[in-house]
Amino acid sequence: MIIATDRARRPTDFTRERVIPSAPRFCPFCPGNELKTPPEVLAYRTSGGPNEPGWTLRVVPSKFPSLRVEGELDRKGEGLYDRMNGVGAHEVILETTDHLASLASLPEKQVADLMFAVRDRILDLRKDQRFRYILVFKNHGEPAGATLEHPHSQLIALPVVPKRVQEELDGARRYFEFRERCIFCDMVQQELETQKRVVLETDHFVVLCPYAARFPFETWIVPRRHESHYESLAAEAIHNLGQVLNQTLKKLDKSLENPPYNIILHTAPVQDRPLDHYHWHIEIMPKLTKVAGFEWGSGFYLNPTPPEEAARFLREIAV
Amino acid sequence: MIIATDRARRPTDFTRERVIPSAPRFCPFCPGNELKTPPEVLAYRTSGGPNEPGWTLRVVPSKFPSLRVEGELDRKGEGLYDRMNGVGAHEVILETTDHLASLASLPEKQVADLMFAVRDRILDLRKDQRFRYILVFKNHGEPAGATLEHPHSQLIALPVVPKRVQEELDGARRYFEFRERCIFCDMVQQELETQKRVVLETDHFVVLCPYAARFPFETWIVPRRHESHYESLAAEAIHNLGQVLNQTLKKLDKSLENPPYNIILHTAPVQDRPLDHYHWHIEIMPKLTKVAGFEWGSGFYLNPTPPEEAARFLREIAV
Repeated sequence: MIIATDRARRPTDFTRERVIPSAPRFCPFCPGNELKTPPEVLAYRTSGGPNEPGWTLRVVPSKFPSLRVEGELDRKGEGLYDRMNGVGAHEVILETTDHLASLASLPEKQVADLMFAVRDRILDLRKDQRFRYILVFKNHGEPAGATLEHPHSQLIALPVVPKRVQEELDGARRYFEFRERCIFCDMVQQELETQKRVVLETDHFVVLCPYAARFPFETWIVPRRHESHYESLAAEAIHNLGQVLNQTLKKLDKSLENPPYNIILHTAPVQDRPLDHYHWHIEIMPKLTKVAGFEWGSGFYLNPTPPEEAARFLREIAV
Repeated sequence: MIIATDRARRPTDFTRERVIPSAPRFCPFCPGNELKTPPEVLAYRTSGGPNEPGWTLRVVPSKFPSLRVEGELDRKGEGLYDRMNGVGAHEVILETTDHLASLASLPEKQVADLMFAVRDRILDLRKDQRFRYILVFKNHGEPAGATLEHPHSQLIALPVVPKRVQEELDGARRYFEFRERCIFCDMVQQELETQKRVVLETDHFVVLCPYAARFPFETWIVPRRHESHYESLAAEAIHNLGQVLNQTLKKLDKSLENPPYNIILHTAPVQDRPLDHYHWHIEIMPKLTKVAGFEWGSGFYLNPTPPEEAARFLREIAV
């Protein structure tokens, strides 16, 4: 990525679309409408039975899935081209009953519950040997691709390891072959030494703006402890992750005035054994600039904000 | 990419932001304001001298360049990380004097002039041996990343071959090693046989919706004749390209009600000799859907419109 320091750089320089939720007319994800979604596959609840009110977090299959659980991959050719069926699972995690809340405004415990639910669902879905990769992400705000407002994350189980994930795995493996160390462990160590790009740190996690940030205020949450698979994370660390994610999003919300953003969990393919060369982490990408012809054509990103400045800003802002 | 046929598919199903230019208060690209841009590097004109009115097309260095022509690459390390200076050239092609026009509304000859100017600039810039790749693109409309409204394209000369370009080159090379044929030549032949995804064809070009379209109504213009470098194109074919590009954009404008779009020229690295395995072409990507967490995380694209349907629609619409 290209850091163009003579372009816009301060948080207030960006044209922003704020994410301000409105009271819903009808929302299929709000309590009382449990029967408007497919039956739940997981719920944390204080009362009630399956598909009844009383839940605090709920996971349901998508009503408009990109991929379907049934069927075989059925790879075949069509002249020059290859095709296969869209086998997979697409689930929606309803993070709260409160339509107007966000991961920044919710209690830390509720954010931790989201991360517990992610672990629970990965551990369940990986039993299906057809699933090679489980992609967990969140689109917050319409400019970041959210089509429903009620706070939710998504989980897609795929029969292949996606291209971008494979690229990241390959890059990390080449580094490991050369140095016999994990590139993410090295990064965490270097970032803690210089402190220049560190936003906050806890016993379990380091939050930083990455050196080669593609987007202004791109922020990563990296566990200190080497672990390739998110689903191996212990309960104590998950509680801490809830705090850290909540704090980080509060800082982004305050610095950038409730920006739209995408959150993506980067983790190893579920059928792989623990990997020495890969290290799970979370990437948060505020949606402040438009991806245009240059980025599409090159795969390079023009980032007007040096990560050191973004990190300093996020570090210093009190929440 | 994933074609999800049970999602939205017809042109009218997309939430669209129309591109409707407004009369400018002040525009640095309009005639009479020639001194508000850096001095021109190329102009086609009917009267006047350099940086005076009388031009019909004008190329100027960007006032806010992403990269600068001066200086050395100066690769160096910073601990774990690598960096180099942003050496390059960033030029803007003002396609017309008419602020309110578009490549769809302009005369075919004016669109051909754009494609002549692209050839002229590539032929000039490739003399600088530091430039490995010249990326030519257009962002049309604010949702596609355009920051100035006056019709313009952009050209960025880079000291490296961009990642996405290298991936396309590598993929095409692997196909050639296996079959000893160009994958794009094979594609053109197969598409002309089935006709299912062909939008229009001329003596020189085939316009098609690609089999593995990432975006709804993604449309490619592919020359029939094998040629790896755009800048080798002969004048007669460039005149025809002006017609074909103008017609294709007219069809997209009419089908999708003036959508925002990106156009990207895919061509071989300028310092390479002619390549048997690569075939230049133009990709047009209407901006109808949002790129969200799933696409960022996976590199896969969810496309709700099968390319056969998009092609049929574009083929049948009269312009």
